[in-house]
Amino acid sequence: MLTRKNDRLADPAALRQKLLNPRSIALIGASDDATKNAARPLTFLRRGGYSGTIYPVNPRRNTVLGERAWPSVEALPEVPDHAYVLVPTEAVVDAVAQCGNFGVPLVTVLADGFATAGGIGAARSAQLKQVSEETGVRVIGPSSLGVIDLRARLMLTANASFGEPDWPVGRIFAASHSGSIIGALAARGKARGIGFAALVSAGLEVDLGIGEICAATLDDPGIDGYLLFLETIRQADALRSFAQAAAARGRPVVAYKLGRSAEARELAVTHSGALAGEDDVADAFFAACGIARVDTFEGMIEAMPLLRRVVPRARERAPRVGVVTTTGAAAMVVDRLALRGIEVAPPSQQTLAQLAAAGVTVEEGRIVDLTLAGARYEIMKAALDTLLAAPEFDLVVAVVGSSARLNPNLAVRPIADCAHGPRPLAAFVAPDAPEAFALLTEAGVANFRTPESCADGVAAALTRRAAVPWSPAPRPAAGKPRALDELAAYALLDRVGVPRAPAVALDATLAPPPALPFAYPVAAKVLAADITHKTDVGGVALNIADGAALVRAVAELRGNVQRQRGTAVERVLVQPMVTGVGEVLVAYRVEPEVGPLVMLAMGGVLTEIYRDRVLRLAPVDVVTAREMIGELKGIRALSGFRGQPPGDLDALAQAIVALSQLAADPTIVEAEINPLIVRAQEQGVIAVDALVLRADEREQTNG
Amino acid sequence: MLTRKNDRLADPAALRQKLLNPRSIALIGASDDATKNAARPLTFLRRGGYSGTIYPVNPRRNTVLGERAWPSVEALPEVPDHAYVLVPTEAVVDAVAQCGNFGVPLVTVLADGFATAGGIGAARSAQLKQVSEETGVRVIGPSSLGVIDLRARLMLTANASFGEPDWPVGRIFAASHSGSIIGALAARGKARGIGFAALVSAGLEVDLGIGEICAATLDDPGIDGYLLFLETIRQADALRSFAQAAAARGRPVVAYKLGRSAEARELAVTHSGALAGEDDVADAFFAACGIARVDTFEGMIEAMPLLRRVVPRARERAPRVGVVTTTGAAAMVVDRLALRGIEVAPPSQQTLAQLAAAGVTVEEGRIVDLTLAGARYEIMKAALDTLLAAPEFDLVVAVVGSSARLNPNLAVRPIADCAHGPRPLAAFVAPDAPEAFALLTEAGVANFRTPESCADGVAAALTRRAAVPWSPAPRPAAGKPRALDELAAYALLDRVGVPRAPAVALDATLAPPPALPFAYPVAAKVLAADITHKTDVGGVALNIADGAALVRAVAELRGNVQRQRGTAVERVLVQPMVTGVGEVLVAYRVEPEVGPLVMLAMGGVLTEIYRDRVLRLAPVDVVTAREMIGELKGIRALSGFRGQPPGDLDALAQAIVALSQLAADPTIVEAEINPLIVRAQEQGVIAVDALVLRADEREQTNG
Repeated sequence: MLTRKNDRLADPAALRQKLLNPRSIALIGASDDATKNAARPLTFLRRGGYSGTIYPVNPRRNTVLGERAWPSVEALPEVPDHAYVLVPTEAVVDAVAQCGNFGVPLVTVLADGFATAGGIGAARSAQLKQVSEETGVRVIGPSSLGVIDLRARLMLTANASFGEPDWPVGRIFAASHSGSIIGALAARGKARGIGFAALVSAGLEVDLGIGEICAATLDDPGIDGYLLFLETIRQADALRSFAQAAAARGRPVVAYKLGRSAEARELAVTHSGALAGEDDVADAFFAACGIARVDTFEGMIEAMPLLRRVVPRARERAPRVGVVTTTGAAAMVVDRLALRGIEVAPPSQQTLAQLAAAGVTVEEGRIVDLTLAGARYEIMKAALDTLLAAPEFDLVVAVVGSSARLNPNLAVRPIADCAHGPRPLAAFVAPDAPEAFALLTEAGVANFRTPESCADGVAAALTRRAAVPWSPAPRPAAGKPRALDELAAYALLDRVGVPRAPAVALDATLAPPPALPFAYPVAAKVLAADITHKTDVGGVALNIADGAALVRAVAELRGNVQRQRGTAVERVLVQPMVTGVGEVLVAYRVEPEVGPLVMLAMGGVLTEIYRDRVLRLAPVDVVTAREMIGELKGIRALSGFRGQPPGDLDALAQAIVALSQLAADPTIVEAEINPLIVRAQEQGVIAVDALVLRADEREQTNG
Repeated sequence: MLTRKNDRLADPAALRQKLLNPRSIALIGASDDATKNAARPLTFLRRGGYSGTIYPVNPRRNTVLGERAWPSVEALPEVPDHAYVLVPTEAVVDAVAQCGNFGVPLVTVLADGFATAGGIGAARSAQLKQVSEETGVRVIGPSSLGVIDLRARLMLTANASFGEPDWPVGRIFAASHSGSIIGALAARGKARGIGFAALVSAGLEVDLGIGEICAATLDDPGIDGYLLFLETIRQADALRSFAQAAAARGRPVVAYKLGRSAEARELAVTHSGALAGEDDVADAFFAACGIARVDTFEGMIEAMPLLRRVVPRARERAPRVGVVTTTGAAAMVVDRLALRGIEVAPPSQQTLAQLAAAGVTVEEGRIVDLTLAGARYEIMKAALDTLLAAPEFDLVVAVVGSSARLNPNLAVRPIADCAHGPRPLAAFVAPDAPEAFALLTEAGVANFRTPESCADGVAAALTRRAAVPWSPAPRPAAGKPRALDELAAYALLDRVGVPRAPAVALDATLAPPPALPFAYPVAAKVLAADITHKTDVGGVALNIADGAALVRAVAELRGNVQRQRGTAVERVLVQPMVTGVGEVLVAYRVEPEVGPLVMLAMGGVLTEIYRDRVLRLAPVDVVTAREMIGELKGIRALSGFRGQPPGDLDALAQAIVALSQLAADPTIVEAEINPLIVRAQEQGVIAVDALVLRADEREQTNG
């Protein structure tokens, strides 16, 4: 019997207080055996110096680790702000129900076995979700290693890392699907003098997701940046709402997401039960959210000072980086930046002149190489002052060699002293140089331990998009959608404004022989909503030269379809043949988690093999559409490659924008134009085939 | 006036002694100002405790840093084993000449300005090379920060890092184009307990190259692995000879090479004057040399224990890795491994049963996830013992979470205790955990600080090839080669055994009209050695249906060429039209630095844009040719993709092998078959066009 006892912490401030600053905590299933994971939260809370009330709950003991234990949550003298449920998997649902019935507003669940165990796990998750909804208790986890707020000395966690003392307090909030990762991040940060405000292990997110958890801290003045470790994307709308609000407050959000490879996506499924989409879907989601995505583990914590400085860029030109160095190690950073598509630009003649005037003489080249002789305060400072003021750079990277280790005053201190220059600044230090790292961190200059994380952090900062304004919208109903026939699909293209070839629908008997409203040569195709792959059933004839050939072609086409599908062809669609300088594929579809997407690809077998495609959340504006075109590698074939005439890419951008407007229609599940013929410049683009899937049932909103 | 005084250290043992264990050292241009780079070698040698004789040479001072200084090298009481020339750029050539005339066998040059300053730099380099050749003095550098042998306490270097005491002595020999990097590597190694035997900053390699330097240490019993930091590839034959000898001794060679991006290759040019080839040329070179290539800076030093254990793989099947973990952080390693093409394989049913029998119960999945509860010695040890004995894995990666930091005895010590198991073992530790790293390094288990370097090191070890047996061969003469006409090119294909279409050469007047030895339809092409791009001048006609069409087509073709080139077409080549399931491009060419290469690509505009091609040094055997086919992404289009008939890839492999045999003919500079038609299985491949460039002049050998 479940009883509704509270308002599910609808007020973010209330959630934040229960989460990060609880006045009292119950530890349900706290163990007396100090070697057990279920003993850790009590040990760590005491060791950390938490000043609120702690209620160990253990029905089989009067004391736990020397403290009074309570037989049940109902026996407690007050309703605790937060309960950490440490009981075995099988006992979790009952324990959470008891908390809910008693009015506990927030519960965190340690146990796993809610996803990995297959059907049983899914059933347990559903039960837990139901208990949460019916009693109003909010749930973090399961598979949550807990919540840490270093400001409140709140070590409510089973992560062994937090048994140690003396954590630096910082202004970063970390949320992670993996509970182990929060310990690893905090420990790596500590070794570098980088502190956190709070860290949450979100686990499987059966109720409270990372988006809602983070959103609860948006008014926390002690937090100025978010770090997300994601195994997959769940509760996408809440995550996007949070990211949009964080962007509005100028708080950067950086994410590391597993699943660049299919293998890791499969792991995410077995680990968390979440169906992870293709990785570029996640990229599109992050881009729309204004979330910076890093690809290196340490880049996650190292990049934050840079993200605080780099305003999401205007997208009309590629970002440019200037590099100044005392060592050949800079080339490693240049190499990695180039692979990420970030241009390291040479200083302009004017900048070179200013460098010379400041006493810095360097050879002309892509980077400003001060050489070993330049490892002196005045030289590095003058070089940085000049480069940071130069209009040609969006960001400056300084790379220091051996001197950084033995005498940071030579070439590292001037970098620290430029922390507040007119452009963002990042540093890579080649040797192991703890003092140099500390100096730079203290000054607020993003400093990187490896050339790989340096390039990663710089690329993540420079390619981050401004969050696209958005509010949650209805999604198509679940279930199997139905296909429209090609004529109905064209009507939809006409509605949103994608140019398409003229088309007439004819009775397949071709009696009487038709007078076409356009000239030969033409194409003829079977017209039937249930035949979505017309070519596969011999249902397409191209380059038909005249009326007699049309009659023959349609007869053959009818025979093919009759043989292959066993059905009679009743209608055919006839179109003029359209040629251009090339073809692309443009598609729209609604992904279950992240919602409407628009895709641009080259089409054809090879580009499918090479996976050359670009995705964005729909709808997109023309600036974003142009950006998509620029990111499609194969588009070079339509950009005047090797003397070929360039295609009308402006019209292509318009068509992408138009198709992406389908996001306003919650009945459309999928729409694919393949091919979209791209004609020469100023001659437009034209769809010559289209497939649309529409949901029949009523609309629904994604949670 | 230059005098030949020695034998250029032809004996490697002599070179090694002068290089790593000199009995006496002259410091030419040693500075009395302790803040100057030219003062460092004396300071560091003394601080390090070098026990040989040191002769500071400075014509302007009687003492340098409190020691007696000599006015010139000729004034020294003996011929020193090694001279470090610390004078300014302009004075270098004279100083080295004096050393050479005095009989100094080995000189290292600090100064730069031998490449970066353009024409002047090149002239200086040529002078230096001449001095070396005429006097017999061997030269390291210029731009060399010196030589360090930690066993001999030889800190003959201007790299500031080596001013500090207490370097761990190890068994790795490092050679680097960048002098800064040797300090960074040593410092990063020191922080991890990883020591070096010796390190050499090779600079511009005007005389002694990295290959020859490393080769001199092959009989050094204190060295068991080589680490190369390369900005480019110079003296490729010497490098390959060394790598082959190292492989024969079972000593791994690992390389980090700049130039994954075009930007970094450009930097290498400005930095070192060397013309760097495309990056996949370097990959092909390393593969043939049996050199493991890493892509991360720290992976370079972290991977060595793994390389010592992993025997270069038999190439008939892809390597498989098993992963065991206590933390979700393992997924980061899986993700990166998959992106590098390394399969993380699930344990077999038998292995799962053995795990269960050993008391390790895990859920089925791609990795063996012991979870937080598995962070115990017995569990991890039992899991590792089982996985390391399982036949399905070539290598096992263990990933440990937070416990590694606070109690390495739980899950890290069992990894250390499995160092000598039946399979190679690598470890990634998620938190900052110095004690765990030290424990693993001490035990000889490769341990990685980041998931990126872990995947990099594992991939580098597993994809390393066995060195291909080789001896230096003559190369085509320099200068402009001449093209063969298509008929002559076919004769060459016939000689090496690449199948090609039948072809007849006809007088372009087609008088009398020809009787062809094959059926229509045919293709006709202009036949002239000086027209290498026939299509571009309208010199190709395809799908000619009959004799009358042939006459028309050839007339048109003659007109085209006459218009576009202003020359009369005298002969045409006629071939039957050949069809298949697809086309590829196979090419052979001699690269100036690394020598003969064979290339496989898909051909066509899009694959050129996607840069889908695979290179190997030529000649190749059929196993390597199959491996090349497997690495070409686009080959999926010819492998039964989406129901298409698969192509005859066995015949393709034979054709690659055949074309690569051109390496035996030092007159051939380039040979390209584009396209090579791939027919259905068991129907072979057939060349329908070929372009061959032959060197006219006499043969020469590459140094």
